[in-house]
Amino acid sequence: MTEHRLTTLPEPPYYAVIFTSLLSDDTAGYEPVAERMMALAAQQPGFLGVESAREQVGITVSYWQDEASIRQWQTHAEHQLAQKLGKERWYATFALQVARVERSYCFP
Amino acid sequence: MTEHRLTTLPEPPYYAVIFTSLLSDDTAGYEPVAERMMALAAQQPGFLGVESAREQVGITVSYWQDEASIRQWQTHAEHQLAQKLGKERWYATFALQVARVERSYCFP
Repeated sequence: MTEHRLTTLPEPPYYAVIFTSLLSDDTAGYEPVAERMMALAAQQPGFLGVESAREQVGITVSYWQDEASIRQWQTHAEHQLAQKLGKERWYATFALQVARVERSYCFP
Repeated sequence: MTEHRLTTLPEPPYYAVIFTSLLSDDTAGYEPVAERMMALAAQQPGFLGVESAREQVGITVSYWQDEASIRQWQTHAEHQLAQKLGKERWYATFALQVARVERSYCFP
């Protein structure tokens, strides 16, 4: 699986937003909006990278320079519309955690 | 998919260990050891919960009361053996990030 790479990140400190979710039975329209949000996030000031995977649980971790960048992205108009649809339709449940990355280690 | 639940976590602050990885072509023996490590982690002092998903990238986020609990788990003998095998065989690459969770939000 060497066609994929992990996100390259700077030296800490920086911020991580850990978003975990379970989808509802109504996922019509979810996929393109999720992809659009990943692409839109990547254009925001302070964005450093994102990783995402879903099995039973979906986990998306996005990385940001500082808390201000995170707050700005959370209030972005198109993102807020997606958040509304997410709550009304697509997510059975989700949790969002904002964390300050203090140390990191990469292999190799 | 309501048979699964997200981990219930306390009020911040607490710590998250974000482990992202890409597997190598040699994954023989990986799955049972990965499962054993999840079960063993859950028995450690200060452990709060864990979520895991793998598509192209594998993401495991484990939650801990404090940094001391994380350091203790990282030096656990059986865990260290698994880490050695992980580097020698199973992981093409991985990144580990220790982060202090400062705020969280749950829906609903």
